[in-house]
Amino acid sequence: MDITNVQHSPMGAHASFTLGHPGPHGGLGLGLAGPAGQNVYVAVEDAPGSGTYHALPFFAADQDDQLARFQGGEEGRPPAPAGPLTALAADQVRRVLDPVTDRWTAGPLDFAVHSPLGALPEPGTAPDEALRRAVLPAVLAEFTVDNTGGTAPLRAFVGYAGSDPYAGMRVVEGPGFTGIGEGTRTAIATDAPGARTAIGFDIPFILGDERHPGDGFGLGQTGLLVFEVPPGERRTHRLALCFHTAEYLTTPERCRYLYNRYHPDLEAVAATALTEFDTLLADWRQAHEDLGAEALSEDRTFMLALAIRSYYGSTELLEDADGRPVWIVNEGEFRMMNTLDLTVDHSFFEARQHPWTLRNVLERHLAHYSYTDRYGISFTHDMGVANVWSPHGHSSYERPGLTDCFSYMTGEQLLNWVLAAAVYAATGDTAWCAAHAPTLRACLDSMLARDPGADGVQTVDSDLVAGGAEITTYDSLDTSLGQARSSSYLAVKGWAAYRWLERTLHALGDTDAAAEAGFRAGRAVKALLASVGPDGTVPALLDEPDGARIIPVVEGLALAHLTGTDVHGEPELTAALRGHLLAVLGSGRCRFPDGGWKLSETSDNSWLSKIYLCQYVARALLAVPDDADMAAADRAHADWLRHPTESRWSWSDQMITGVAAGSRYYPRGVTAVTWLLESGAR
Amino acid sequence: MDITNVQHSPMGAHASFTLGHPGPHGGLGLGLAGPAGQNVYVAVEDAPGSGTYHALPFFAADQDDQLARFQGGEEGRPPAPAGPLTALAADQVRRVLDPVTDRWTAGPLDFAVHSPLGALPEPGTAPDEALRRAVLPAVLAEFTVDNTGGTAPLRAFVGYAGSDPYAGMRVVEGPGFTGIGEGTRTAIATDAPGARTAIGFDIPFILGDERHPGDGFGLGQTGLLVFEVPPGERRTHRLALCFHTAEYLTTPERCRYLYNRYHPDLEAVAATALTEFDTLLADWRQAHEDLGAEALSEDRTFMLALAIRSYYGSTELLEDADGRPVWIVNEGEFRMMNTLDLTVDHSFFEARQHPWTLRNVLERHLAHYSYTDRYGISFTHDMGVANVWSPHGHSSYERPGLTDCFSYMTGEQLLNWVLAAAVYAATGDTAWCAAHAPTLRACLDSMLARDPGADGVQTVDSDLVAGGAEITTYDSLDTSLGQARSSSYLAVKGWAAYRWLERTLHALGDTDAAAEAGFRAGRAVKALLASVGPDGTVPALLDEPDGARIIPVVEGLALAHLTGTDVHGEPELTAALRGHLLAVLGSGRCRFPDGGWKLSETSDNSWLSKIYLCQYVARALLAVPDDADMAAADRAHADWLRHPTESRWSWSDQMITGVAAGSRYYPRGVTAVTWLLESGAR
Repeated sequence: MDITNVQHSPMGAHASFTLGHPGPHGGLGLGLAGPAGQNVYVAVEDAPGSGTYHALPFFAADQDDQLARFQGGEEGRPPAPAGPLTALAADQVRRVLDPVTDRWTAGPLDFAVHSPLGALPEPGTAPDEALRRAVLPAVLAEFTVDNTGGTAPLRAFVGYAGSDPYAGMRVVEGPGFTGIGEGTRTAIATDAPGARTAIGFDIPFILGDERHPGDGFGLGQTGLLVFEVPPGERRTHRLALCFHTAEYLTTPERCRYLYNRYHPDLEAVAATALTEFDTLLADWRQAHEDLGAEALSEDRTFMLALAIRSYYGSTELLEDADGRPVWIVNEGEFRMMNTLDLTVDHSFFEARQHPWTLRNVLERHLAHYSYTDRYGISFTHDMGVANVWSPHGHSSYERPGLTDCFSYMTGEQLLNWVLAAAVYAATGDTAWCAAHAPTLRACLDSMLARDPGADGVQTVDSDLVAGGAEITTYDSLDTSLGQARSSSYLAVKGWAAYRWLERTLHALGDTDAAAEAGFRAGRAVKALLASVGPDGTVPALLDEPDGARIIPVVEGLALAHLTGTDVHGEPELTAALRGHLLAVLGSGRCRFPDGGWKLSETSDNSWLSKIYLCQYVARALLAVPDDADMAAADRAHADWLRHPTESRWSWSDQMITGVAAGSRYYPRGVTAVTWLLESGAR
Repeated sequence: MDITNVQHSPMGAHASFTLGHPGPHGGLGLGLAGPAGQNVYVAVEDAPGSGTYHALPFFAADQDDQLARFQGGEEGRPPAPAGPLTALAADQVRRVLDPVTDRWTAGPLDFAVHSPLGALPEPGTAPDEALRRAVLPAVLAEFTVDNTGGTAPLRAFVGYAGSDPYAGMRVVEGPGFTGIGEGTRTAIATDAPGARTAIGFDIPFILGDERHPGDGFGLGQTGLLVFEVPPGERRTHRLALCFHTAEYLTTPERCRYLYNRYHPDLEAVAATALTEFDTLLADWRQAHEDLGAEALSEDRTFMLALAIRSYYGSTELLEDADGRPVWIVNEGEFRMMNTLDLTVDHSFFEARQHPWTLRNVLERHLAHYSYTDRYGISFTHDMGVANVWSPHGHSSYERPGLTDCFSYMTGEQLLNWVLAAAVYAATGDTAWCAAHAPTLRACLDSMLARDPGADGVQTVDSDLVAGGAEITTYDSLDTSLGQARSSSYLAVKGWAAYRWLERTLHALGDTDAAAEAGFRAGRAVKALLASVGPDGTVPALLDEPDGARIIPVVEGLALAHLTGTDVHGEPELTAALRGHLLAVLGSGRCRFPDGGWKLSETSDNSWLSKIYLCQYVARALLAVPDDADMAAADRAHADWLRHPTESRWSWSDQMITGVAAGSRYYPRGVTAVTWLLESGAR
């Protein structure tokens, strides 16, 4: 089986039931920067009455040391019994993953986890009923145990060892269901008749008590749901994996999860998840069908599924003190809130699935996280970190006086807001564009001011850098991608923005501004074309002809195309970029030895989200063939996510020579959704 | 300086600013099973403008590895600058501790932490104003920096690195104060003019940025308050160390902290703490004076102060959904709620400081955590664990079929409820006794039924043990103290309970029952006297004359005396117990080599809370001289709490050969308050 952790995540709950990487590396995580690191148990008795079990390999066999502290002083206590639980080896288990269902099968055990996909209606505009279901903070599971060949009841159990520092394990009960949970935050519940709960220090402790497994006992961090399957039967037990935070969690502006309107606590979540199990699952499967991913290759399906689940695992749908919805995509392990250079990369996915969340983020950025420097308007890198809102007009990230990581991204974030707005507008909301005409004009003016030579390219730094230099979203890469001034990557993005502003401002009647935008777009093309070297490649920095070569110079074509610009209307540009890409890939300058794409020829740090987007550009817009080379790259990229140890971080972005080294547990991989826009077999 | 962690704790907030043990072992802990394990910084610049600092040694020098993940891919990044911060060595710091104030002094640095002591009025019966102040979830500190000899401003800072898994660090501001905090739960605030906040990954990162230290930057878990002291001045900066949990935290019955009535968030806590700093501190100092501990020796003062702070660090004052107060003492690192065998040990302290909390616990035990077995009424071991209420009538701890740890304590808990009720009644609330006459009678009947031979001693086990055997509170000790049947320790406690029931039921007019109680008390004395061996000692188990000898056979005398029984009215009993105690101590049977008391001659596990109580019995009731031997024992016991590594657990109970091994971070040490009842110099 694949050993990659998957964030089985509700939508907007900043939560996931993470599972897949052998060992205690998954579990029910809520609001965390990484996997919960819990023991998760999915176990079936070896034979009826044997008292020994095999389980999916998602736990460590260590005994809980809390038990030893209780028993502190007793000398001569017998050693703990040999563990009754054995982990299945990875090669004994078959696993199949798609964006909704992750299924493990081994002998009599079949365990499938189902996560939401599909409608996420805008609060206030959709019937409450649809919103109520969409925001349910739960994922579903089916635990099937086959005792058709047995002659006595076969026992099985699921459960986990909680890791909340503030609360203990408990029984979570309601009409028609029972479950085990941790405090007010997480629970696993079932409506399977006859299921029993047990709480204790560890598996030997719980299973060793044959008399009254856990009846009322409450010590220890391990909670189990225990099932018995009668002989001759194959039973499927339904599970709801539930998450909940009741009250405000952001500061200083207080917001709480919007789902509290409908689901006031874990018990309510469990009741809804189990009562509406069939409907929910049918909806999610329909959404999976609607996604149209069936033509993707196995590696691409794997990466897209993983990326979608990690994206939702980072999302928060909140409401503010006035009941207005607030959408947050946390930045994976870093948990920065609505980082704008991620927003633009998420925009394709959000525009397809729930465009209102993109609008929600754009409007909050404009209202609270825009600012004006010497040149005009721009937007902060993010809105805060780990549920702490930054002071308005400031990000949690940017600092003056620097030339790399943590410097300002003023110029790029200006483009990112414009282009994300353009992606949103392309969903058809022309009224929104009209309402924001003054802002769009201010954005254009700010772009123009940052291009004092009228070259169509940003050539100055914001005064906020105070002696430092602006950077781009590629903050931890080398200068070739990290520097904003004269960046060819930003030049193409800027061209995409100018072209969209040209059309949009024209439509809004601001013809002079539109003309200037068009002029600068042409200048940008000119500057790019002028930079093409004798080998047909474009330098990363337009003013360093002998400098490094990078793949992402093509990235902006995706934004242009997806915001309505006919990229083939600039045949010289696309031809140049096609030549560039074929050259840097074909020559191996921007390849790793495994065939994976290397964003910059001078850095071993490569980012999957950006590779995905540039692959889309290559195939869909630059007619780079989807051939064996491309498949080899896919295999390399997928294998990076199947790393023997680092795949515990689920979908990760920053890969140093193919090993996740940062930006782990990360939402940005949904750039892969652009693959679904390609025509033909993939 | 002493290196013991102290839980500087508000009353009823299950919180403490734990500090004292070198390394990252303290910090702002809320709802935890142990110290928060945070870096805490209290630092003063070595000289004005030097840029290097010395600090109290409560941090680790490691660089935050989160920073490395941000900078992930950049090759050739320069190594981190040499740390600008050096920890003071323990021998460079002077420390003075009392139950209110803990003060560290080193050169120009003076840091004093002040914790509440005194009135905790009963909600609903006292003016709101007094309750509002008493429940404030904060401790205070004064950070004095001496720059009288300086010729330029001297910088200093305090701060901490948060450890909440769910939230980031932030600025906490309000009128007249600023601070740094973590999410919604903890903060340090100051009203010192000119104080500035800084947030970052670690100290080198923050101090290395001379340009704009942390202005708006929000990444990293380290938050600092930075001060500048002008030349020629010595300034004291006031600090409020604040805790908060806004909403319900217990399940399934929901309760929230009662302080939310007055203090809705961290900002409100900080504002009150700083505005009312003088009044609060004056009140606490008066309460310290009222305690009357000035005659205690240095070791006893140290242990009492430590114990009081660990007790309050385990307390929770909640209100239920109907606004009724709920008092919980969590069981230290185990966090079981209102463990009844601890309640009786806390009763002396609570009866003195706030008797209504004792009544509150007794009434909840009676209402929800009593049950009836074959013999009659008894009470559960506890009410739940880690904010999870057990099902009514069940504890989180007790299980059938066992003979040691986790078995039932039915007989002992019956005595504990009666005796804790007796301690409460001795505060003067005779109406409460009258209202509970039927319960007291039921308790007596249950005691009688457990003594079918009418020997005055429990000789049967509850049917709930289902083939196992009842145990006592000494669950992790050897059988000599762990077995309930025929326990001489329980026999003396039973005698104390019978005597109190005799008088109380008589006063309530139930003369027959009173007479039977008196008869059984006499029988208990007889049984104890009959067990005295040729060497003058009483066996731990009355039916094992050659078995082990234990100290706690005398423990019940304290309960008898403190509930109004004239123990000297049983001269044979007191003489026998005096002879026993002198023999087991004098012979070394119940001594460790360091002079510390060994509760059982056959176990190396000894419990400080029980030693304290038995020391009180020895000196106050059995005329054992308070001599050099006693002082040597005090020194041994205090040194156990000054252990080179285990003193990070603050006050701990279970000591295996003088090393804390369980029941750490524990409330039970307030049995030491009985020392204040002794007459003469101590």
